[in-house]
Formats: sequence, structure tokens, C-alpha cells
Amino acid sequence: MEVRRVSEAVIRRMPKYYRQLQVLQAQGVERISSGKLAQMMRLNASQVRQDFNCFGGFGQQGYGYNVNTLLNEIKGILALNQTHVAIVAGAGNIGRALASFDNFEQQGFSITALFDINEELVGTQVNGKPVLNISEMEEYVKQNNVTVGIIAARRSAAQELADRMVQAGIKGIWNFAPIDVTASVPVENIHMTDSLICLTYKMFHNVG
Amino acid sequence: MEVRRVSEAVIRRMPKYYRQLQVLQAQGVERISSGKLAQMMRLNASQVRQDFNCFGGFGQQGYGYNVNTLLNEIKGILALNQTHVAIVAGAGNIGRALASFDNFEQQGFSITALFDINEELVGTQVNGKPVLNISEMEEYVKQNNVTVGIIAARRSAAQELADRMVQAGIKGIWNFAPIDVTASVPVENIHMTDSLICLTYKMFHNVG
Repeated sequence: MEVRRVSEAVIRRMPKYYRQLQVLQAQGVERISSGKLAQMMRLNASQVRQDFNCFGGFGQQGYGYNVNTLLNEIKGILALNQTHVAIVAGAGNIGRALASFDNFEQQGFSITALFDINEELVGTQVNGKPVLNISEMEEYVKQNNVTVGIIAARRSAAQELADRMVQAGIKGIWNFAPIDVTASVPVENIHMTDSLICLTYKMFHNVG
Repeated sequence: MEVRRVSEAVIRRMPKYYRQLQVLQAQGVERISSGKLAQMMRLNASQVRQDFNCFGGFGQQGYGYNVNTLLNEIKGILALNQTHVAIVAGAGNIGRALASFDNFEQQGFSITALFDINEELVGTQVNGKPVLNISEMEEYVKQNNVTVGIIAARRSAAQELADRMVQAGIKGIWNFAPIDVTASVPVENIHMTDSLICLTYKMFHNVG
């Protein structure tokens, strides 16, 4: 399927459709209208139809969407019908939590190793995955077809790690260090504290 | 200061200004123009000025912003000049990682206890914080002026925990369970996997 010029906002909504459809499938719902789906997701129906039209549309006007078919189409678009091999650079608290989080595995992301500079961590295991010396990262990436690099290191090390990952052939970076890294491959910079700060803003300014 | 009708998009940008200004302050920068700040944050200058005008504006036209003053103003707006007491419901991998993450503490969020239903976890400690029985949560919230409730439990328990938290007097909920919870207080639902999925979408569709 040809997919082009999809806006960031649409890309951001795709995982949400995916989640909502998984819930519907689990509930045994076979068919859903764009209006009903929109309502569940607090969007409007034309928004949903527009979003799906970016990918050629998935249904027949006035007939609704088949939940299984739609879920499979979106799964394919999101490349979730294949396994992605990932590594974690940094075996501290965040790195260890990410490696322990089996939810990623269920979505097709297989974290196979962690890397750290700390000799006391190297040689240990996290959730059955080895912690290797950071100096071995590049070789490991090449040997194991790693496509996703997760950065869970301190701020000062993050950009260098991103550069090394890209050099080694990694195709996308998921960064948890508290600094935005840049790369020639797609990057998602996660700032968990931003969300917490937005929460307190709303608490203190009485935003519904 | 009176703050009203600030859009979600502006709220979302405030923590990012806060982070960028912290970097500037650490670099010893004393004054910054909206244009320069915009450039650093990949916004445009009028956007920055508009955002700040939501809060009464912070500078003199053509003269730029004093970094320290601006940082302090934003800190106040975000309620980061005070300590927020938080608890974590769920002492599994995510709950433990959150309680171990000292970054929150630095931002003024003090996680003082975790709660779990699992008797094997109750009585243990995570990063010096006690894991208490979930049945004690309400009483603890009331006794300790807890304002932020963090949900790190399984999907099926999340909404009930949210309801109990609000009943007990919690003012905002930060939810990590893989389901959106709703409440009469502000809620931030975190779906980390959504970000990972957006990353792979971009990798597979060659989105810059």
C-alpha cells in the first residue's frame, strides 16, 4: 500500500486506533461505524474517516468497518506484524524497567540486550537479557540485526550514544535521557516529567 | 497571576520552555530573544510570544527575556516552586522504576509510598520508600496530604484505583496502566508503547 504525506497528528492517532480496536476485538465486536469509533476516542467521525483515507480508507461508505480487517490493516501500516529487535543503552533504573516490561514484547518489540559502561553491571542479567559492555554495542547491533536503539543513559552520554547507534546501523531511536537527541533516523524523545508537569499545571489551574 | 483559557497545546509546550530555560540558565545565558528561543525549540517567534501572552507576557518588546526571571515565572505557573506528595499504586516493574527515578524528586515531586495487593511485596522498600497494603491507601492519602496518585497497576485494576484515589482526596492522576482512566480530577494517561509504535511507523515509512 502506498502511504504518503501523512501528518504527525495522524501518525500520533494511529496507535490509539490500534488500541481501541484491540479492545473492540476482545469484546467480540465485529463491525463499527466511524461515528461510534470516533465517539469512543473523543474525535469526530469525519476526522476518523479522513485519517483512514490517508491510507486508502478501509471501509465502505455507510457500512462501517470490519473490526478484524481494520485491526490487521492498521497493524500492517504500523509494522506491528513483524518483530523488531531492540537494545537498551544504559542499565540503570529506566533501562532495567524497560527491559523488564513484557508489554513491549507483546507488541513485537524484542529487547535482546542492555549495554552499560559500569563494570559492576556488565555480566549481570535483567529479565533474562544480558548486560554487555557498551564497547560491544556496535558489533552486537550489526550481528543481531538490531533496528531500534533505546537510550536510557544520562544526559551527557545521550547524543554520543545516538550517533554510535546510527553509525552501527540502527534505524530508529527511542530516547529516555532528559535531553532531545537528534539523528538522521527517526527519533522519539520521551520526557515523562513533561506529562507530570502538565498534570500539576491542570491541578493548580483547575483545568477540567 | 490570573491564568485562563489556556489551550492544551500551550499547556503541553510549557514544560518544554521550562526545560530549555534550565539549559540556558546552566549555560550562564542571561537574556534571550523570543526569536532565539523559538529557533532552539523549533517553533516560530510569534508562537513563543503568543504562548507567553497567555500568562500576561514576560518581557519588554524588542528587549528579550531575562532568563532567570522567565524561568522563575514559568516555575510558578507550573506549580514547580512547591513540593507535591505522590504515591504509586502498584509495586511491579513500572511502579518500582518510577519510585526509583530521582528525577521526579528534583522537580518537586516526592513519592513517599507504594501500595500493592501482593503480600510478598507489602513490607518491602523501594528506593527507601515503603510498600504498603493497598487497603491502607485511602487512609495514607488523607494523613499525608497526598495530591498526586500514580497508577502502575494492571489494566483491570486501574479505573477502580483511580476512583478510590479521587474519593480519598487526590487532586490529579498519572496513569501508566495500559487503559485510559477517567476521573473528576485532571488525568494524564501515559501510553509509552504509542511512542514506540510511532517510531517504527516512521522507520518503515521513511518519515524524516
